[in-house]
Amino acid sequence: MTIDQLVHHFAGWLDSSGEYSEIVISSRARLARNLDSVPFASRASKAELSQVLNSLLTIREQSSYLKDILFFDINQLSKIDRQILVERHLISPALAEGKDQPQGILLDEQEVVSVMVNEEDHLRLQAIQSGLQLQEVWALVDGMDDEISRLLDYSFSEKLGYLTACPSNVGTGLRVSVLIHLPALVLTQEIEKVLRAIAQVGMTVRGFYGEGTEVLGNFFQISNQVTLGKSEEQIIKSLIKIVTEVIEYELKERQTLIKDASYQLEDKIWRALGILENARLLTTEEFMNLSSAARLGRSMELTSHPDFKTLNQLTVIVQPSHLQKLAGRYLESSERDIFRANIVRKRLQETTTTPER
Amino acid sequence: MTIDQLVHHFAGWLDSSGEYSEIVISSRARLARNLDSVPFASRASKAELSQVLNSLLTIREQSSYLKDILFFDINQLSKIDRQILVERHLISPALAEGKDQPQGILLDEQEVVSVMVNEEDHLRLQAIQSGLQLQEVWALVDGMDDEISRLLDYSFSEKLGYLTACPSNVGTGLRVSVLIHLPALVLTQEIEKVLRAIAQVGMTVRGFYGEGTEVLGNFFQISNQVTLGKSEEQIIKSLIKIVTEVIEYELKERQTLIKDASYQLEDKIWRALGILENARLLTTEEFMNLSSAARLGRSMELTSHPDFKTLNQLTVIVQPSHLQKLAGRYLESSERDIFRANIVRKRLQETTTTPER
Repeated sequence: MTIDQLVHHFAGWLDSSGEYSEIVISSRARLARNLDSVPFASRASKAELSQVLNSLLTIREQSSYLKDILFFDINQLSKIDRQILVERHLISPALAEGKDQPQGILLDEQEVVSVMVNEEDHLRLQAIQSGLQLQEVWALVDGMDDEISRLLDYSFSEKLGYLTACPSNVGTGLRVSVLIHLPALVLTQEIEKVLRAIAQVGMTVRGFYGEGTEVLGNFFQISNQVTLGKSEEQIIKSLIKIVTEVIEYELKERQTLIKDASYQLEDKIWRALGILENARLLTTEEFMNLSSAARLGRSMELTSHPDFKTLNQLTVIVQPSHLQKLAGRYLESSERDIFRANIVRKRLQETTTTPER
Repeated sequence: MTIDQLVHHFAGWLDSSGEYSEIVISSRARLARNLDSVPFASRASKAELSQVLNSLLTIREQSSYLKDILFFDINQLSKIDRQILVERHLISPALAEGKDQPQGILLDEQEVVSVMVNEEDHLRLQAIQSGLQLQEVWALVDGMDDEISRLLDYSFSEKLGYLTACPSNVGTGLRVSVLIHLPALVLTQEIEKVLRAIAQVGMTVRGFYGEGTEVLGNFFQISNQVTLGKSEEQIIKSLIKIVTEVIEYELKERQTLIKDASYQLEDKIWRALGILENARLLTTEEFMNLSSAARLGRSMELTSHPDFKTLNQLTVIVQPSHLQKLAGRYLESSERDIFRANIVRKRLQETTTTPER
């Protein structure tokens, strides 16, 4: 499969199939691993990085997880193709920059499991699923890790655990996260309190695209901060606990909104739908905000459309590089707003059976 | 017919039947007349004002215009019923205040011709029609005036013409006006230039409810300022001339918009429709602005719905007193916003066959 083909598919984690998938878009796990025989990526020579990449490609056939997996060499991808991978949450913006080094990504067709090679660490084993499925994504990366560890020598310290390029990942090398939609907490201004509570239990909150990105459309990424001194099971259980509490708080605030401001809430939701279904120009930011309201409405059963899967998928394809791939040409920012509005309108029309206005 | 029944009817001038009715909502003419035997209304006693009212009611049968006409005694109307007449552009806010004086309005069921009695002048003969029909409304008030003048003695000076309570109406006592929709001139910011040009030829521009009211929804009332020293025909021809020029300018600016900003224009129009069709809360001001965009879209054939008649009728029934009459009870301002949004949504649904999104 090429990137051009990938664009016309939707990743499995967008299908809104997991538990709480109206609130939790996705669950993700990644393990940072480095080969013992090679210096960390930032200090390794091109030849050494090549060695890392080739080692992984060589053992591919022997792994049940990796043998049917696709491989993309970052250096052979155009700038826009790399951005497609970023927009699909498959590679980091740092990897997309491409420093003329042996770097790449292995991924399955469903985009559930993947391995980033020679980003900050030699290997980043990743899994992503729809809804609250932290145990499931952990099981995937753990299984992949077990197989690879039998075939390649990891950099490991008896005292510290897995050694990583950045000290913040040392130990388990595990980061688990959820992408969660918290519109009611934002509307009732309880979100700051929640974010503080999350920080107090050693978790981190980020924006839609991870570290250093802003919150868009009331989507938050909650992940563990600590990788050292705790077992993987402890890390995952802590995250599940806090996420479950946040979900309950969000649901409680939704009831508060219905009780105290039902007309304002319904108005906000229906207007958002009306604009999504009719606008001829849409920026990404406005799309994210309107689609947040639409998701909230559907989730609270105030509306019967659009379904979460459609909203999830639109969130991916309205991004600049996806739009340009779908258009088959370079689009100026102003053209993208037109194209984005067209795609949103058409997708919502297709999936709307009988709107109950 | 009672006011309660009136509320469920729509005035003839809302049917969007006249020339240029996509731009010119209505044409109106009124003649200020006073009886020679009675002091002006502000100086007359209650008995004298009674005499004016009774004189008119007495001759009613002898007039082809007035014999089948309805009569409402302002003193016998509740505050909300009076406001209904104001919202239908039938009586002035001043008459609606009601000073416990013999005051009233005669009007036909179609609300085309009417006579306000004992407002600023003893009689205000009025006619209103859809679209650009200034000659037609003039013919109506002129005919009514001819009949009445044969039956009652008007206050008239050979030198000045008809004498009126306010010097600004002395002479012909004629005011002709159009209610015109100029969204493109507002969008391209050419409107100030146009308003200055209108003032220079001795015409006045006012807001939606006449003197001292603000411009809502890009609707302007253009009327003659001068009533003295010009014949009625001259006054009407001057107004037709300037209105025709303004229409041409507006149409030219619409073409400019399509040429220079077609996506922005279509976006504005479709969003307005999307909000009108979906909102659960609508203030009068927002309705007027959105309906202005919807009217522009329909007028430029960028959309196929809603029709002008629906938009015109909505403009009347979304007003506070109409909403309360239709609800059958007093509504707080916040309740009116809910009720207004419901009415707009339902009317647009009824009149939308197959939207071509």
